[in-house]
Amino acid sequence: MAIDDDMEVGALGPYTDRPRVFPSMRSKPYKPLKSQTFWGWLLAMLTVTVFLQIFRVLMGVNIRVLLVLMLLGLGGIFYIGASTSPIIVFVFSVCIISFLLSIYLAKWVLAKDEGPPEMAQISDAIRDGAEGFFRTQYGTISKMALLLAVVILSIYLFRSTTPQQESSGLGRTISAYITVAAFLLGALCSGIAGYIGMWVSVRANVRVSSAARRSAREALQVAVRAGGFSAMVVVGMAVIGIAILYASFYVWLGVDLPGSMKVTELPLLLVGYGFGASFVALFAQLGGGIYTKAADVGADLVGKVEQGIPEDDPRNPAVIADLVGDNVGDCAARGADLFESIAAEIISAMILGGTMAQRCKIEDPSGFILFPLVVHSFDLVVSSVGVLSIRGTRDSGAKGAVEDPMAVLQKGYSVTIVLAVITFGASTRWMLYTEQAPSAWLNFALCGLVGIITAYVFVWITKYYTDYKHEPVRTLALSSSTGHGTNIIAGVSLGLESTALPVLVISVSIISAFWLGHTSGLVDETGNPTGGLFGTAVATMGMLSTAAYILTMDMFGPIADNAGGIVEMSQQPESVREITDVLDAVGNTTKATTKGFAIGSAALASFLLFSAYMDEVATFAHEPFKQVDIAIPEVFIGGLLGSMLIFLFSAWACSAVGRTAQEVVTEVRRQFIERPGIMDYKEKPDYGRCVAIVASASLREMIKPGALAIVSPVAIGVLFRILGYYTGHPLLGAKVVASMLMFATVSGILMALFLNTAGGAWDNAKKYIETGALGGKGSESHKAAITGDTVGDPFKDTAGPSLHVLIKLLATITLVMAPVFL
Amino acid sequence: MAIDDDMEVGALGPYTDRPRVFPSMRSKPYKPLKSQTFWGWLLAMLTVTVFLQIFRVLMGVNIRVLLVLMLLGLGGIFYIGASTSPIIVFVFSVCIISFLLSIYLAKWVLAKDEGPPEMAQISDAIRDGAEGFFRTQYGTISKMALLLAVVILSIYLFRSTTPQQESSGLGRTISAYITVAAFLLGALCSGIAGYIGMWVSVRANVRVSSAARRSAREALQVAVRAGGFSAMVVVGMAVIGIAILYASFYVWLGVDLPGSMKVTELPLLLVGYGFGASFVALFAQLGGGIYTKAADVGADLVGKVEQGIPEDDPRNPAVIADLVGDNVGDCAARGADLFESIAAEIISAMILGGTMAQRCKIEDPSGFILFPLVVHSFDLVVSSVGVLSIRGTRDSGAKGAVEDPMAVLQKGYSVTIVLAVITFGASTRWMLYTEQAPSAWLNFALCGLVGIITAYVFVWITKYYTDYKHEPVRTLALSSSTGHGTNIIAGVSLGLESTALPVLVISVSIISAFWLGHTSGLVDETGNPTGGLFGTAVATMGMLSTAAYILTMDMFGPIADNAGGIVEMSQQPESVREITDVLDAVGNTTKATTKGFAIGSAALASFLLFSAYMDEVATFAHEPFKQVDIAIPEVFIGGLLGSMLIFLFSAWACSAVGRTAQEVVTEVRRQFIERPGIMDYKEKPDYGRCVAIVASASLREMIKPGALAIVSPVAIGVLFRILGYYTGHPLLGAKVVASMLMFATVSGILMALFLNTAGGAWDNAKKYIETGALGGKGSESHKAAITGDTVGDPFKDTAGPSLHVLIKLLATITLVMAPVFL
Repeated sequence: MAIDDDMEVGALGPYTDRPRVFPSMRSKPYKPLKSQTFWGWLLAMLTVTVFLQIFRVLMGVNIRVLLVLMLLGLGGIFYIGASTSPIIVFVFSVCIISFLLSIYLAKWVLAKDEGPPEMAQISDAIRDGAEGFFRTQYGTISKMALLLAVVILSIYLFRSTTPQQESSGLGRTISAYITVAAFLLGALCSGIAGYIGMWVSVRANVRVSSAARRSAREALQVAVRAGGFSAMVVVGMAVIGIAILYASFYVWLGVDLPGSMKVTELPLLLVGYGFGASFVALFAQLGGGIYTKAADVGADLVGKVEQGIPEDDPRNPAVIADLVGDNVGDCAARGADLFESIAAEIISAMILGGTMAQRCKIEDPSGFILFPLVVHSFDLVVSSVGVLSIRGTRDSGAKGAVEDPMAVLQKGYSVTIVLAVITFGASTRWMLYTEQAPSAWLNFALCGLVGIITAYVFVWITKYYTDYKHEPVRTLALSSSTGHGTNIIAGVSLGLESTALPVLVISVSIISAFWLGHTSGLVDETGNPTGGLFGTAVATMGMLSTAAYILTMDMFGPIADNAGGIVEMSQQPESVREITDVLDAVGNTTKATTKGFAIGSAALASFLLFSAYMDEVATFAHEPFKQVDIAIPEVFIGGLLGSMLIFLFSAWACSAVGRTAQEVVTEVRRQFIERPGIMDYKEKPDYGRCVAIVASASLREMIKPGALAIVSPVAIGVLFRILGYYTGHPLLGAKVVASMLMFATVSGILMALFLNTAGGAWDNAKKYIETGALGGKGSESHKAAITGDTVGDPFKDTAGPSLHVLIKLLATITLVMAPVFL
Repeated sequence: MAIDDDMEVGALGPYTDRPRVFPSMRSKPYKPLKSQTFWGWLLAMLTVTVFLQIFRVLMGVNIRVLLVLMLLGLGGIFYIGASTSPIIVFVFSVCIISFLLSIYLAKWVLAKDEGPPEMAQISDAIRDGAEGFFRTQYGTISKMALLLAVVILSIYLFRSTTPQQESSGLGRTISAYITVAAFLLGALCSGIAGYIGMWVSVRANVRVSSAARRSAREALQVAVRAGGFSAMVVVGMAVIGIAILYASFYVWLGVDLPGSMKVTELPLLLVGYGFGASFVALFAQLGGGIYTKAADVGADLVGKVEQGIPEDDPRNPAVIADLVGDNVGDCAARGADLFESIAAEIISAMILGGTMAQRCKIEDPSGFILFPLVVHSFDLVVSSVGVLSIRGTRDSGAKGAVEDPMAVLQKGYSVTIVLAVITFGASTRWMLYTEQAPSAWLNFALCGLVGIITAYVFVWITKYYTDYKHEPVRTLALSSSTGHGTNIIAGVSLGLESTALPVLVISVSIISAFWLGHTSGLVDETGNPTGGLFGTAVATMGMLSTAAYILTMDMFGPIADNAGGIVEMSQQPESVREITDVLDAVGNTTKATTKGFAIGSAALASFLLFSAYMDEVATFAHEPFKQVDIAIPEVFIGGLLGSMLIFLFSAWACSAVGRTAQEVVTEVRRQFIERPGIMDYKEKPDYGRCVAIVASASLREMIKPGALAIVSPVAIGVLFRILGYYTGHPLLGAKVVASMLMFATVSGILMALFLNTAGGAWDNAKKYIETGALGGKGSESHKAAITGDTVGDPFKDTAGPSLHVLIKLLATITLVMAPVFL
C-alpha cells in the first residue's frame, strides 16, 4: 500500500516507450474524511460486541478455513434438521453440495493467472478501495442493525400476545428473542452475501482481463464462473439460513407436540429474518448505489465531456473510484439485494402455505410450508447445470474470433429453464399432492409455469425498451440529434411509457395464478376455495425458480465491466479491448433484464406479505381484518403518504448521487488544474482522494433515505393509532398502514420500472450512437446522449434498485411492527 | 391576410434605418396540413347539426350582440329560478352583475390603444394563428363530444333504473336525455370559457405592450383587467350554468312535489355537466399544451441554443407559433381547466350536501345543496373588488420607475382574501344554520378557514420550491455549473421531493376538515355523526373561495408573456422591454402558484367525487358499497392499472411535445439553411408554416392520450365486470374501478406536483442565472440551465396541467358510467 508514496516522490521515470500507464494504481488505504461524533463513539462501543467481531473474524480468516468452519457448523445443524423433516435434510444436502460446487468454482477462478503486473496493480487498487469501503459501510450498517434490534426487542417485550401463542408456550420473552435473533441472522447473512459478491468480483475482474488476452470464450467462462460462485453462495445461504431457523425453532419449541404451537404458525416467526435481510440490503444498495454512480457521473462529466479523454482512462483521477464503485455498488449491493428478494419470497410463501394448510385442515402441512425451500434447492441444482454448461472450448484458440457472448449465456439459460420446468413440476407433485384435492398439484404446477412465462415476458419487455435493436431506443437516439433537451424529454417519456406492459403482464399473471389456485380443489371447512393466494405465491416461486442463474448473469456484468476498465487502464492491445467491450455490452443487457425480473418478483412478494400482514393484524385484533376501506379519509391519506414516500425516497436517492457527483467533479477539476502534468502522463493523479471523497459522501448520503424508509411507516402507524384512539376509531393505525403499504407498493413498482428502463434506454441510446449512428462519437448527438446517460445513472443504479428493496422492506417492517399499530 | 404574399414577392425594401423588424408578421390563414378521411367526413356531416352551428354563430357575432342575447336568455331563465328558490335568484343576480362588470372590463381594455402599426401587425398574426387553431381544435373536440354523447345516450337508454327513480317518474329515457343534455351543456360552456380566455388575451396583449410604453402600472392594470374579464366570465358561467340546470330540472321534474323525486337527489343529475366540462378541458389542455410547448421548445432549441438569437426574436421562424401557443395553451386551456375545476367542485359538494341533508333529515335541505353556488357568487363579488382595487395611478407618469408588480397583485389578493373570509363565514351562517345542530355552521365556517389556509400554504410551498429567492432553485442553479446531466438530476430530485410538503398539508387539512364536520353535531337517524365528508367539501370550497381572483392572476401571466413577445418583436426601446420582462417574471410565479392551487383542489374534489361514486354504486346495486377490499387480487390490480394510467398518460403527453418539437426544429433549421438572408433581416421567415406544422401536429397528438383517458376506465370496468360474472364475484367491476380511481388520483396528484414543480424550478433556475449568477447569460451553466428549462416545458405546461383535468375526468367518467360496471 505504500508503493503509492514512492511514486509521488518522483519514482516516475522519464517519458519511456510505454508511458500511457502510471506505474502504480494503488491508492492510499481508505480513511473516512470526517471524525466521528460522540454518539458515533457510543454506538461503536456498543458494537464492539459479538456482531462486529464475528464480521471481522469472518472477513479476516482464510477462505478455506471459513468454509471448513461452515461445514462443521452445518454438520451440527444437520442433526437438528433430521429431527424435523426429511425435506429439511434434502434441502440441507443440496445446499451443502452447492456450497462445495461453489468452492470448486472459486478455486477454478482463482487458479487463473492475474496477468501482467500492471493489471495486478490496478486490480489491487480496486480491491483496496472496495474492501475499505465495504468495511466502513458495513460497520455503519451493523451499528444501525444493532440499534434497531434493541428497538424491536423492547417493542416485543411490551407487546401483547395472542391466546394461541400463550397456549403454545410462546411467551412474550421467547417471541421477542426469536424475532430479534432472526433479524440479526438475516442481517448477518445479507451482509455475508454482499461481501461474497464483492470478494469474488474484485478477484475475478483481473483474471477476466488476463483471460481476454488469450480468448474471448475463456474470459466469458471466467466471468460466468465467478458470477456462478457468488450466485450459488447467495441463494444457498438464503435457503439454508431459513431452513436452519425453521429446524431450530421446530426442535426448540417442540412444534406439533401436544400443547405446543402448530407447524403452520412457525413461518411467521421467520419474518424477522426477511426484515434483517431487507434492512441490510437497503443500506447496501443505497450506499453502494450512491458510491458507484457518483463516481461514474463525476468521472464522466469531467473526463469524457470536459477533457475529452475516453472512459476508464488512467489520467482521470476518479477512474479508480469508478471501478471500485462497480464492485461495491453492483456486486456487493446486488448480492444483498437478491439474497433479500429470495428470502422475502420464501418466507412469504411459507406463511401463506401454512395459513392455507391450516384452513384446509391438511393432514401433513409440511409439504406446503417447505415447498419454497425445495423449489430453491432445485434452483441451485438446475442453475449449476446451466453455469457449468458454458464451456471454455469453442473458439479453439483463435484470438480474434469474437462470438456473441449473449448467445452463449442464452443457451445456458435455455438449459436451465427447461430443467427448471421439469423439476418444478416434479416438486409440485412431490410436495403439494394431497388426498383432499388430488389434482391440486397440477394446478399449482401450472401456476409455476405462469411464473416462469411471466419472467420470460418481463425479460423480453425490458429488452424491447432498453436494447438498441428495437424501436424505442432508436427513437430516443434520434431525439438526441435535436439536442440535450429533447433527448431528456424522450427518455423520460420512454421510461414512463415502459411501465404499461409490465403492469399488464403482472396483472394477467396475478389473476391467472390466483384463479388456478382458486380452482385447485382445495377448500376450507365451509367449502370455500382457499388456494388462490397460494397460487400467486407458487407463481412467484416459478418466476424465481432460476434465480441462481439469473444472479450469475447479473454478477457477470460488473465483473466484465471491471475487466474492461483494467484492460483500458493497462493499455492492452485493441483486440483485447474488443473482447472486454463485447462482454461489457452483454453485461449491460443482463443487468437491465435482471432488474425487470427483480421488480416483478418484488411486486408479487409484496402482495403476499401484504396478505400476511392482514392475517397478522386479524390475529392480534381478535377480529377479521379483511378489508381496507379507502373511502375513509385517514385511509385515503395513508395511501397518499405511502405514494409520497416513494417519490421522496427516489428524490433523496437521486439527489444524493447528484450532490456527491458534484463533489467529485470539483475534486477532479481541481486535480487537473493543480497538476497540469496529468494529461501528458507526467504526473500521477491522486486516485485515493477521489475514493475517499466518494466513500465518505456516500456513507453520509445513504442515511437520510434509509432512515426515511425505516422511520416513516412506523411513525405513520403510531400516529394514526393515537388519532384513532382519540376519535374512537379502532384499528385505524393498522388500516392506514395497510393502505400506505399498498399504495407504496404500487407506486414503487411503477417508479422503479420507470427509473430502471429510462436509465437503461439512455445508456444504450448512447451506445447506439457510439456504433456510428447519427454522427457517431464526438458528434452533437453523442453529447446529448451522454447527458441522457448521466441522468440515467442514478435512476437505474441507485434509486431504481433501492426501490426494489424498499418495497419489500416496507412489507416486512409493517409485519414485524404490526403490534405497535394496534 | 394577404399582405403576407406581397412581402414575399419583394415589397421588402432595402436596408433602412430600422431594419430589425419585418414589415408584416401576419401569417397565412391556418389550413390543416392533412386532408380528412372518410370517417372524418362522416362525423363532420353528423356535426353540421346544432352543436357546431351554435359554436360558429357564437364565434361569428359581435361581442355586444352576444352579450345582449345572453342577457335575454337569462331573463327567461330568471323566471324559472324564481320558482325554484330565492337562493337561485340571488345567484342569478350576482352572476348577471358580474357579467355586466366583465363587459365593463372588456370595454375598458378594448378602449386602450393598440400602439404603433408594427405592434398591431404582430398582434394580428398572433390572433389569426390562435383563432385558426382554436376553430379547428374545437371542431375536432365537438365532434368527439357528440360521438361520446351518443354513446352515453345509448348506455343510459339500456341501463337499469333504481326503484326510487322509477317511483319519482324519472324513467330511463328522461334520465338519459337529462344526462346527455347536461353533458353537452357542460362541454359547450367549457368551450366558451376557453374561447373567452383566448379572445381577450389576443386582444389585450398588444394593448399591454402599448401601455408599457407609457407606464408600468398602466400595463399591469390592463393585463389584470383583461385577466379579470375572463375570470369573471369563466367563474360566472360555471355558476350560472349549474344554477340554470338545477332550476330547470327542479321545475321540469316537479321536484319535491308528492310522488316526484326529492331535491336531495337532484344534484346527481348534474354530473353530466361536470363530465362534459372535464372532457372538453382535457382535450383543450392537451392540444393547447402540446401546441404551446412544442412551439416554445422548438423555437428555443434552434433560436436560442443553436443560432444564439434572443427569445422572441423576429428572425426565428417559430416565434409567431410560440406566441400563438401562449394564447391557445395558457389562456384558452387554462380557462377551460379552471371552469372544469369549479364545476366539478360545485357539483361534488352539492351531491354530498344533498346526501348529508337526506341522512340527517334536515327540513329544508336546499341550504346545504345550494351552498357551493352561494360561495362562488360571493367569490365573484370579492374577486371583483380585488381586481378593481388595482388602480393605474401610482407611479404618476414616471416611465422608468418599475415597481414590483407582484406586490401590487399580492395587495389585491389580500383584499380579496380578507373579504372572502368574512363572506364565507356569513354564507355558512346563512345557508348551513339548522335547528338540529345550531352550532354546525360555525364548524363549517372553520372548515372553510382550513381550506383558505390550505390554499395559502400551498401557494407558499410552490413559491418556496420554484422561486429563485429560496434555496431549492439556487441549489438547482448551482448544479447547472457541473453540466447538463447534474442539472437534470437535481431538477428531477427537486420535483420528486416537492411532493412531500403538499401531501402533508393536504393530509392535515382533509383530516381536520373531516373532524370539524364530524363533530358539527349533525347526526343521522341512528345518532351517528355524518358531517365529516361535507366538512371536507366545505374546505374545498374555502380553498376555491377566491377562485376568480386566482384565475385573474393566472390569465395575467400569458398576456404579459405575449406582450413581452410583441415588444421584443417590434423592437421597442430597452425601458419598455424592462417593464414587460418584470411583468412576465411575475406571470411565471403566478402561473406556478395557480397550479399548486389547482392540484390541491383537484385532490379534494376527486376525493368527494369518489364518495359520490360509492353512493351511486350502492344505489344501483341495492346493497351497501362502503369498502374497497384492496387485498383481493383484482382490486389490487385495479389500483396498479390506475397508477399505470397516470404514468402512461404523462408519457404520451410529454412525448407528444417532444415529437412535435422535433418537427419544429427540423422546419426552423430548414428555413435557416434555405433562406440565409433571415439572419440579416433580408429575408422574411415563413411564420405560417411553423404555425401550420405545430397546429396539425398537436391536433394529431392530443388524440392518443385523450382517448386513453376516456377509454381505459370504461374498458377496465367492463372487463372486470365480465370477469366477475364468470367467476361468481358480484360488483367486481365497480370495485376494481373504485380502486383504479383512488390509485389514479393519488398517483396523479403526486405526478402533477412533480411535473409542475420541476418545470417551474428549472425555468426559474435559468432566470436566476440570467440575472448574472454563476456566469450569467451565455455561460456553460446557462446552457445547462436552458436544457433543464426545455425539459421542464412539457412537464409544467402540458403533462402537469392535463393531469389536473385527468384526475377529475376519471372521477366524473366513472360516476356517469357507473351503470356499465354493475
